[in-house]
Amino acid sequence: MLRFECDYTEGAHPRILEALIKTNREQTKGYGEDEFCETARKIIRLACGREDMNVHFLVGGTQANATVIASVLRPHQAVICAETGHIATHESGAVEATGHKVITLPSEDGKITAVQVKKLLDEHWSDPTREHCPQPAMVYISHPTETGLIYSKRELTALRRVCDNRNIPLYLDGARLGYALAADENDLFMADIAELCDLFYIGGTKVGAMFGEAVCICSEELDRDFRYHIKQHGGMLAKGRFLGIQFETLFKDGLYLEISRNAVSQAMRIKEAFQSAGCDFLYDSPTNQQFPIVNKAVRSELSKNYSFTIWKEMPGDKTAVRFVTSWATKEENVDTLVNDIKRICRLYGEKTPSWSVEMPE
Amino acid sequence: MLRFECDYTEGAHPRILEALIKTNREQTKGYGEDEFCETARKIIRLACGREDMNVHFLVGGTQANATVIASVLRPHQAVICAETGHIATHESGAVEATGHKVITLPSEDGKITAVQVKKLLDEHWSDPTREHCPQPAMVYISHPTETGLIYSKRELTALRRVCDNRNIPLYLDGARLGYALAADENDLFMADIAELCDLFYIGGTKVGAMFGEAVCICSEELDRDFRYHIKQHGGMLAKGRFLGIQFETLFKDGLYLEISRNAVSQAMRIKEAFQSAGCDFLYDSPTNQQFPIVNKAVRSELSKNYSFTIWKEMPGDKTAVRFVTSWATKEENVDTLVNDIKRICRLYGEKTPSWSVEMPE
Amino acid sequence: MLRFECDYTEGAHPRILEALIKTNREQTKGYGEDEFCETARKIIRLACGREDMNVHFLVGGTQANATVIASVLRPHQAVICAETGHIATHESGAVEATGHKVITLPSEDGKITAVQVKKLLDEHWSDPTREHCPQPAMVYISHPTETGLIYSKRELTALRRVCDNRNIPLYLDGARLGYALAADENDLFMADIAELCDLFYIGGTKVGAMFGEAVCICSEELDRDFRYHIKQHGGMLAKGRFLGIQFETLFKDGLYLEISRNAVSQAMRIKEAFQSAGCDFLYDSPTNQQFPIVNKAVRSELSKNYSFTIWKEMPGDKTAVRFVTSWATKEENVDTLVNDIKRICRLYGEKTPSWSVEMPE
Amino acid sequence: MLRFECDYTEGAHPRILEALIKTNREQTKGYGEDEFCETARKIIRLACGREDMNVHFLVGGTQANATVIASVLRPHQAVICAETGHIATHESGAVEATGHKVITLPSEDGKITAVQVKKLLDEHWSDPTREHCPQPAMVYISHPTETGLIYSKRELTALRRVCDNRNIPLYLDGARLGYALAADENDLFMADIAELCDLFYIGGTKVGAMFGEAVCICSEELDRDFRYHIKQHGGMLAKGRFLGIQFETLFKDGLYLEISRNAVSQAMRIKEAFQSAGCDFLYDSPTNQQFPIVNKAVRSELSKNYSFTIWKEMPGDKTAVRFVTSWATKEENVDTLVNDIKRICRLYGEKTPSWSVEMPE
Repeated sequence: MLRFECDYTEGAHPRILEALIKTNREQTKGYGEDEFCETARKIIRLACGREDMNVHFLVGGTQANATVIASVLRPHQAVICAETGHIATHESGAVEATGHKVITLPSEDGKITAVQVKKLLDEHWSDPTREHCPQPAMVYISHPTETGLIYSKRELTALRRVCDNRNIPLYLDGARLGYALAADENDLFMADIAELCDLFYIGGTKVGAMFGEAVCICSEELDRDFRYHIKQHGGMLAKGRFLGIQFETLFKDGLYLEISRNAVSQAMRIKEAFQSAGCDFLYDSPTNQQFPIVNKAVRSELSKNYSFTIWKEMPGDKTAVRFVTSWATKEENVDTLVNDIKRICRLYGEKTPSWSVEMPE
Repeated sequence: MLRFECDYTEGAHPRILEALIKTNREQTKGYGEDEFCETARKIIRLACGREDMNVHFLVGGTQANATVIASVLRPHQAVICAETGHIATHESGAVEATGHKVITLPSEDGKITAVQVKKLLDEHWSDPTREHCPQPAMVYISHPTETGLIYSKRELTALRRVCDNRNIPLYLDGARLGYALAADENDLFMADIAELCDLFYIGGTKVGAMFGEAVCICSEELDRDFRYHIKQHGGMLAKGRFLGIQFETLFKDGLYLEISRNAVSQAMRIKEAFQSAGCDFLYDSPTNQQFPIVNKAVRSELSKNYSFTIWKEMPGDKTAVRFVTSWATKEENVDTLVNDIKRICRLYGEKTPSWSVEMPE
Repeated sequence: MLRFECDYTEGAHPRILEALIKTNREQTKGYGEDEFCETARKIIRLACGREDMNVHFLVGGTQANATVIASVLRPHQAVICAETGHIATHESGAVEATGHKVITLPSEDGKITAVQVKKLLDEHWSDPTREHCPQPAMVYISHPTETGLIYSKRELTALRRVCDNRNIPLYLDGARLGYALAADENDLFMADIAELCDLFYIGGTKVGAMFGEAVCICSEELDRDFRYHIKQHGGMLAKGRFLGIQFETLFKDGLYLEISRNAVSQAMRIKEAFQSAGCDFLYDSPTNQQFPIVNKAVRSELSKNYSFTIWKEMPGDKTAVRFVTSWATKEENVDTLVNDIKRICRLYGEKTPSWSVEMPE
Repeated sequence: MLRFECDYTEGAHPRILEALIKTNREQTKGYGEDEFCETARKIIRLACGREDMNVHFLVGGTQANATVIASVLRPHQAVICAETGHIATHESGAVEATGHKVITLPSEDGKITAVQVKKLLDEHWSDPTREHCPQPAMVYISHPTETGLIYSKRELTALRRVCDNRNIPLYLDGARLGYALAADENDLFMADIAELCDLFYIGGTKVGAMFGEAVCICSEELDRDFRYHIKQHGGMLAKGRFLGIQFETLFKDGLYLEISRNAVSQAMRIKEAFQSAGCDFLYDSPTNQQFPIVNKAVRSELSKNYSFTIWKEMPGDKTAVRFVTSWATKEENVDTLVNDIKRICRLYGEKTPSWSVEMPE
């Protein structure tokens, strides 16, 4: 069984393990106040071109989201996100557990637009009885989205402007940030994100780390007392060094981008295989998650040797499935998968594969 | 600088690192549903002699406490603990953040007694206007306590009985459980704890792991839906395997107890050194935390080469300080420390050291 | 200006004021433990045909909803309701403030169906990763709905069955319950509601009381410790007698139903007036809220002498507006309104009023 | 049975009932935006000499406290109060339910001092690991205290200064404010309170109203969005007029102070009776609550005709009991009580009553 169900099926990047071993017997202070964390902070600030930005290391994404959102909002305030947003769908109500409503915007593809956000904000603020409704006071986006798509610089700038007009923070969940940075069509670099967002996090767990997310806070006011919040949310690792060492390793010598590129390349090979086999896609993703639509027979055949996610039942006997690559995805495994896609789709697929005429093996 | 300020100054036990490396490229399911976790669960159940007990792996202690307590209590209920209890003092209000009051009982030494708990419960239930007060509905103890002390089997049994009388759960925070098990005077074994408590956790972070706590739930009813709570509290590690592998390693071949014994032995050497030097102790701890009382001069001299915790300012110019050992504490470092304690106390101490007559070096 | 914007523009029913005056100098116990409350409880139990039901008096609807829902759910659980449900739209996130997600179902008319609820529950429980999502664990309906509609006995029975299958409670928000009971097409009586729901509240504020809602809990288990919850949510009135006296008055001699009938009769007159004037309605309401759709000119003319709610902007220059009657609505004021509707719609309406041919005044 | 157990055994002051009746059929806007509320706001602002202060009307004290505190604190922050403070003892964990710890200071008499608060704040801010503890960020006092005592202008000014030094708000719970204002030794007037506190509330429920507390917020920043919080906490009365009318009545023509004086006068008569009878007092209260210490026999005899509160069991066979007067306490009832105190204490008391020699009735 080859696993393509998610980007955390393997352990950590070997260089991370090496660094952990090398430093294991050194004695350090706890709770992220060690020198490894300090170094990692510096490197990340450098990568973002913002010396004034603070960086905190948390253990996981759900924790990072709940901690950030709860630290920013007052009790009557709510966060806006796409209906597909991770905080709205797959965090077991962690945001609501801190007392806040998650206001969802309809979204075909997992992205939200500045126009949508503006409309929602305008409606709230023009309602004379608005105090009967939670106050929308923060925008959450994921980049890449849960659907594999990425925001362009223009789109993010537009969201920024809407937030500025209402003086509310923009927060970007970068659980898979590396895979966005590595996408061919990407025009949003770390420095852009650090400039356009008030808060964001750089995902480690899904991009080569054992675990860990680097929360970046771009304003002193939003950063105030943030360490209390980390502690209260159970995110302050006693041996915080393990987070520092991992992020130092990931951001030294461009490892983060390098391994992200591998994932995206392999994902593109899978995309092409399904495309050539005549499959449609639920989303046209340029990143490490691919959402081909297959019929029951193809799905069944593929599932004999591969694990992948059943994403959405579609009309007819179709299913949108998800194949995910990561820093750890091996080229030879993708070779095997690509061959199987071709073979299975020719046998069981409905449309004529694009190669079947020219190249009937 | 040799660090004795806490039990998480070093990394992880080498065997844990080895196990992580060995399994790093294997593909597994996420979120603790992998086979490593399953194996670790089995070994822990075996060690506790309870096949019916469920085991969940969380990342840290504050998180484990908040998750367990919030999963058990209804909104109007409160948890009882010693005024020195970790949840009452050093978790940034994590329990209150889930909506519950922490009711504290006065405690000289960090322990609470069955009599105290009974009195508090009786008072609540005999108050005709009790619905104006939070309802005490769970007992939290730490073992060893934050003061290094341990409960005896008799004491724990008495607490159990009081809880049974009111039908409320007893929860044991075992952040340093290994160091209790390894104490000379200990008569409470894993199986006793699993029998007498409704919930408890076996600490990994402070006993050789990189991170991780194994929450054990001894009743099906209390265990119901617990995984939702872990997820909601940000404690469900995507690469849950890392928790399974660590706990498997710790509980295979008795490693957990073995490394705990080392810590306690070294702590006893430090204890004896201060004792012989004529120092009093804030608590008479049989575990890896030692609380000698020293004067300003001694404290100042010691702090030149050792990091330790300033625990409590005492009358006169005295300070209770805390020296902590761990699985990683090296014998040679304790040699050095012991010699320095002798030397410094002879020079700056107030009482005549016990060895100074017989053995005037 | 005649007010038809809501059902709480006037004070309290005169008989309530009389009862308050008459009993004002009597001395009673506080917090709802007085004899007036006890009598009111008995009368309500009688009216519901359930001796085993407990009744608690709270001050307002938002408070009643948050208190009931928080008392029932565990932290990882969510409540299901229509997207138009009061708890989802007009309670400032009070439910989320207690930590719970409100899961909304799409609804054209403000009602939800057993089929919808079943589908949502089935989807959750068949999802192998369901612990990543809040667990739907309670159903909330309002009756009449915020759109003025009512559930039939068959519909409520079907919801009951779905809840039973998953063993989750059904909760009915009866803020305007009287106006449902008084509707011509109603077939759901107090006893049916008390039999089919696990919890419900009988609205006082909108049906003649100064304030007050009677929360009825139909199971001992759900009722356990409920008074703690009332107190914690700030709903335990010190002079609880004022709630008891009001509900005693409302449920003695059928006053509650009698005044509700007046409201519905007057609402029907308004409905007919708009209908005859050729207006469509957003919802076909049989209760005290009416939602005619008018053009800008009609809306503007009407607003010169009447206050009503702008409910929803519609395509074209249309607006759905809301006219609300209450126990206090005077026949002569409705006479005036009806005449004005006729006059204004004839002058500014688009369709030919139904009476304009036969009866050209 | 004559009731002296609390200050809410009767209904409302007759003038309030009159005002309610007189205005009952007027139509107004809901939710506190009516003209009665507006007038009441103006009168209260005038009484406080602060035009810039905002006034909100809530239903009860527990609700007012939770709403105010939750609106001010960020999630990691805690409120400081006396261990006897109402929020720490008799609000069923309402503050904790909003996520905040209540940090209690020891207090013999129910008051806290500026020195105590300063020490606590200094300790927190000088702790290098302070982010592991909830951050003390607000001071709560009750005035009069739950023990009947009052703060002097000097004491309140000192607390103000400590709060200013740390830039944290000072909040005064005035559930019984009238009885403080009416005390002989009082030197803190409404204007002083409005100047020295950031937030406070003027109690209505215990001082002649049916219900209702006027929350006064003395800074625009703290007042921002407060109406959302009221609504979220279930404190926004639909028929808000009832709050406005009551506070207008209480603050017009000095009624509030006038009826408070009656309560205090009657309390002083009870105090003198116990004093003359040789009783000690738990607290030397100048307000409407009196805490005489009586033996079991006296307590038992008194309880035959009077209801009062058993406050605290004392050494020997003594009990501290509480007698409370209110705006509604009748002189003739106090006459009877005073006579009974004399009679019973002479028969069953231990000390010789002061009048027994000169005037052996």
